[in-house]
Amino acid sequence: MKILDKINSPKDIKTLSPEEMANLSGEIREAILNRVNTIGGHLGPDLGIVEATIALHYVFDSPKDKIVYDVSHQIYPHKILTGRKEGFLHPEHTTISGYSNPNESEHDNFIIGHTSTAASLATGLAKARDLKGEKYNVIAIVGDGSMSGGEAFEGFNNAAVLNSNIILIVNDNEMSIAETHGGLYKNLKLLRETNGKAENNMFTAFGFNYVYVANGNDVETLIKAFQDVKDTDRPTVVHIHTLKGKGYKQAEENKEAYHWQLPGFMDAKEPSGGQTESYESLTTDYLLKKHETDKTVIAISPSTPGAYGFTPEFRKKMGECYTDPGIAEEHAVAYASALAANGAKPVLAIMSSFMQRTYDQMSQDLALNNSPATILVYWGGLSPMDATHVGSFDIPFLSNIPNIVYLAPTCKEEYLKMLDWSVEQTEHPVAIRVPFGNFVSTGIEDTTDYSILNKSKLVKTGSEIAVIAVGNFFGLGGDVVNQIKEKLGIEATLINPVYLTGLDEELLESLKENHKIVVTLENGILDGGFGEKISRFYGNSDMKVLNFGGKKEFTDRVPLSELLTRYHLTKEQIVEDISKLI
Amino acid sequence: MKILDKINSPKDIKTLSPEEMANLSGEIREAILNRVNTIGGHLGPDLGIVEATIALHYVFDSPKDKIVYDVSHQIYPHKILTGRKEGFLHPEHTTISGYSNPNESEHDNFIIGHTSTAASLATGLAKARDLKGEKYNVIAIVGDGSMSGGEAFEGFNNAAVLNSNIILIVNDNEMSIAETHGGLYKNLKLLRETNGKAENNMFTAFGFNYVYVANGNDVETLIKAFQDVKDTDRPTVVHIHTLKGKGYKQAEENKEAYHWQLPGFMDAKEPSGGQTESYESLTTDYLLKKHETDKTVIAISPSTPGAYGFTPEFRKKMGECYTDPGIAEEHAVAYASALAANGAKPVLAIMSSFMQRTYDQMSQDLALNNSPATILVYWGGLSPMDATHVGSFDIPFLSNIPNIVYLAPTCKEEYLKMLDWSVEQTEHPVAIRVPFGNFVSTGIEDTTDYSILNKSKLVKTGSEIAVIAVGNFFGLGGDVVNQIKEKLGIEATLINPVYLTGLDEELLESLKENHKIVVTLENGILDGGFGEKISRFYGNSDMKVLNFGGKKEFTDRVPLSELLTRYHLTKEQIVEDISKLI
Repeated sequence: MKILDKINSPKDIKTLSPEEMANLSGEIREAILNRVNTIGGHLGPDLGIVEATIALHYVFDSPKDKIVYDVSHQIYPHKILTGRKEGFLHPEHTTISGYSNPNESEHDNFIIGHTSTAASLATGLAKARDLKGEKYNVIAIVGDGSMSGGEAFEGFNNAAVLNSNIILIVNDNEMSIAETHGGLYKNLKLLRETNGKAENNMFTAFGFNYVYVANGNDVETLIKAFQDVKDTDRPTVVHIHTLKGKGYKQAEENKEAYHWQLPGFMDAKEPSGGQTESYESLTTDYLLKKHETDKTVIAISPSTPGAYGFTPEFRKKMGECYTDPGIAEEHAVAYASALAANGAKPVLAIMSSFMQRTYDQMSQDLALNNSPATILVYWGGLSPMDATHVGSFDIPFLSNIPNIVYLAPTCKEEYLKMLDWSVEQTEHPVAIRVPFGNFVSTGIEDTTDYSILNKSKLVKTGSEIAVIAVGNFFGLGGDVVNQIKEKLGIEATLINPVYLTGLDEELLESLKENHKIVVTLENGILDGGFGEKISRFYGNSDMKVLNFGGKKEFTDRVPLSELLTRYHLTKEQIVEDISKLI
Repeated sequence: MKILDKINSPKDIKTLSPEEMANLSGEIREAILNRVNTIGGHLGPDLGIVEATIALHYVFDSPKDKIVYDVSHQIYPHKILTGRKEGFLHPEHTTISGYSNPNESEHDNFIIGHTSTAASLATGLAKARDLKGEKYNVIAIVGDGSMSGGEAFEGFNNAAVLNSNIILIVNDNEMSIAETHGGLYKNLKLLRETNGKAENNMFTAFGFNYVYVANGNDVETLIKAFQDVKDTDRPTVVHIHTLKGKGYKQAEENKEAYHWQLPGFMDAKEPSGGQTESYESLTTDYLLKKHETDKTVIAISPSTPGAYGFTPEFRKKMGECYTDPGIAEEHAVAYASALAANGAKPVLAIMSSFMQRTYDQMSQDLALNNSPATILVYWGGLSPMDATHVGSFDIPFLSNIPNIVYLAPTCKEEYLKMLDWSVEQTEHPVAIRVPFGNFVSTGIEDTTDYSILNKSKLVKTGSEIAVIAVGNFFGLGGDVVNQIKEKLGIEATLINPVYLTGLDEELLESLKENHKIVVTLENGILDGGFGEKISRFYGNSDMKVLNFGGKKEFTDRVPLSELLTRYHLTKEQIVEDISKLI
């Protein structure tokens, strides 16, 4: 019988012998590997935190003691030990997510998928406890990678002066998602090298009680360390040194590639990662080509280079012309703005949902200063991802900031032309919504002059009905036009608006002549988005306007087909809605 | 003849004798006091940085050497020495702003009015310099208060590994706007107490070359320190200890009150600060009353307590039930979310433009987790302020995030009722747009049940035309309805929509019966705002909709009356626009 068979909640850990705990570690690793190999997910950070999680639940009493997992990249062992092992033993038959989620278990305190928040959240939990006069431990587990984000610093800065119990476990596996970057890692290194004894210590400098655990993969040592700080009455940092990928040789050796893996990776010859032509490969090919002749072109990626095809090889070739500032999106935007202001050509790659960290920097550092940096927005649109990672908010987010030019290419050729225009121009901050999903190539070179702002492309001239289809919904727009012809017998007009940040008022005005209905299609929520601007434009006229897009809501792992049906985004539903107006 | 008479650019500093420089310091202080006493502005931080600014321009060669001033609260002496002294000697006759602005002078590198950005911006300037193969110094001046912001940490973390010239001057005057908060200040204190000699040093921990200047108000010492680091080839921190308010006794003694002052403060008996009934006093009175019986009510202010009437007296009374987390807005929102999640009743006060730091925390930590915290948004709306401080973007910013309830009270009575409802309810994250501008009291107690979401108030029932007027534009809505009666002879309907985050679809539907035109009025930009949602709602109908509000643009110190006219927001212009549709 396996040890894991009898572990159904944290209290089942408390009676295990050291030997049983060692065996349990192996079984947890098997379960993690099984999940990732079956449905994909985070691997390296979870493999590294197995022993610490066992020790944590052995010493502390969750859910009375409250535990917060930063970014959730290290939460699998916790899930396995808190009643959710089926999500790992038989992941294909459960809906257990890969992230912290209180709807799944009382042992999770927040829905979390963005980095650097745990110290702040734990400080809030601890302060509420104190205000209510309660007693228990509040614990945050923060990876060393997450510490590069400004919110983590803000959280540590405030946790340090809480004047009561809070325990911040810094899980130092010497890696972020990729390698770590920044001065703080010099200090972590010094602390590791001195077995935590160095006088120069950012944690004690802030006033924390500090404990170092050199072997963060040894359960007994960890238990001792956690027992020593349990019920402490002062802010405490436990700095544990762990091995990312521990127990799976390939993951120990290639920590970046195995941070996250796709299903079936255990049987694959290479770690997963795209090789075929994609918007990612177009981008890296373009940047490398520019780099040959122009050393002022600089690629920037705040810590998730893999998502953009910024492989170790790409980064090596770019050399000094590549910056990974850590998970520091705010800095990244200000940095890019200043690079552009001083004559360099920065290209910042960022994911739609993580870009949410940067509103103020986009507004103040970039837009107000009109710095001609290029922002590439990846993963924008409705998707079946976790609620924390869905990118359906970036159009309202970015397109309502003055001065920014936000472009929505519909295919490879447009994307490349826009990218090159953006990099070379010096007039505007430009963001490009890199198409997410199907790769589209027309095979026809794009010769558009994108410096003529807000000029839409009239792709097909018809009458009665005009369909304005944004970015990667342009294909849907074509389908809708065909469906209109088929079902309603009308030759509709098809427009690619190109710009999300301004309207082609001349074209819109001209549609009034022989059109009665304008339909907008956008891949994102409608509230604050593109379509509403068209509705406003026609508000004083007889034109009917139908806006199609997502609803303002968080969606969590909902299949895309279900979302499209829910929002009336199939060509059949759209044409049915149109037909009601005729 | 005064020394200042012959200072027209930084190079005029370089020939001064020590004695002349000492005299110049006094003249600069007089000029600063003159400006603030004439037109208002930042006082304490500027008085403290006089000597350092003289030394800076004596040693370095601006504009070749590039200087970035964090938040601009310490930029007045720099402006005086870089050709803009008229803005201080005769401020009433110039348009010299109080903030860094490259449109004014080649000695300013960015438009800056938000904190904690200088290290990031300087890192970008320096990196561009390196990519272009140029040589000069890049210098950032960062106040100790600004260092509590996460972006500052991100900037320092990355500056530390730049591997070339960057000089970060930390101006430590032992104060933020109010007193400083957080663990990092323990380290700054230790460094001051040890004359910079302490081994435990967050700057050297990050790898910086570190220099301490105990007397940061002594020009000669500063010159020596700056000369020593000029043209350094490695990231360097110069930590200077200065006296906030130096040279003006009241400002030295009451550092918080004299951080910023209104015109005429030199003749006033007390430092300026409101005493009459206002939305600020309503808030503090409410919180203090709640505090008497409920110690889980906790007020939070990220570093600008004065703007909300959170005076030292108020803070003292609230005791442990008040948190100033430093200029750490991201942390503040996550912290508030966790406080609410753990059963406390947090009330976070934040200014509209500074709230821009928190989009991701509003979305992820607050809204996705549906934490019932209360966010009070101050200074939202069109205003004659500097471009960095105008709050005309918060409706698009906040109202397009799922789950958040964003309320727009129109008067004192509604505000108080909403505030109390928000604090006591446990279902939703709630934000309230505290009316900015005229104080309105109806004298009639509000008995609305705000838990019935998205229910508008039908204030006056008419026909043909319905006016939906948001928040502090509700008064304008009443004026418009009267003007419609007078000019068009129509009894229009008047609606207070109350909620910015959802529509009262039943009411809107019913308007179709006997209305032809719906007019929306909102105090903020139209793009992504409230009115566009109404336009979308009526897109498929015969209803004409006119949205009135601001244009998507940055406005810099434009008088409010001019803005209102520019955007067609006077009652006469609005009714004229309506009449074109009849």
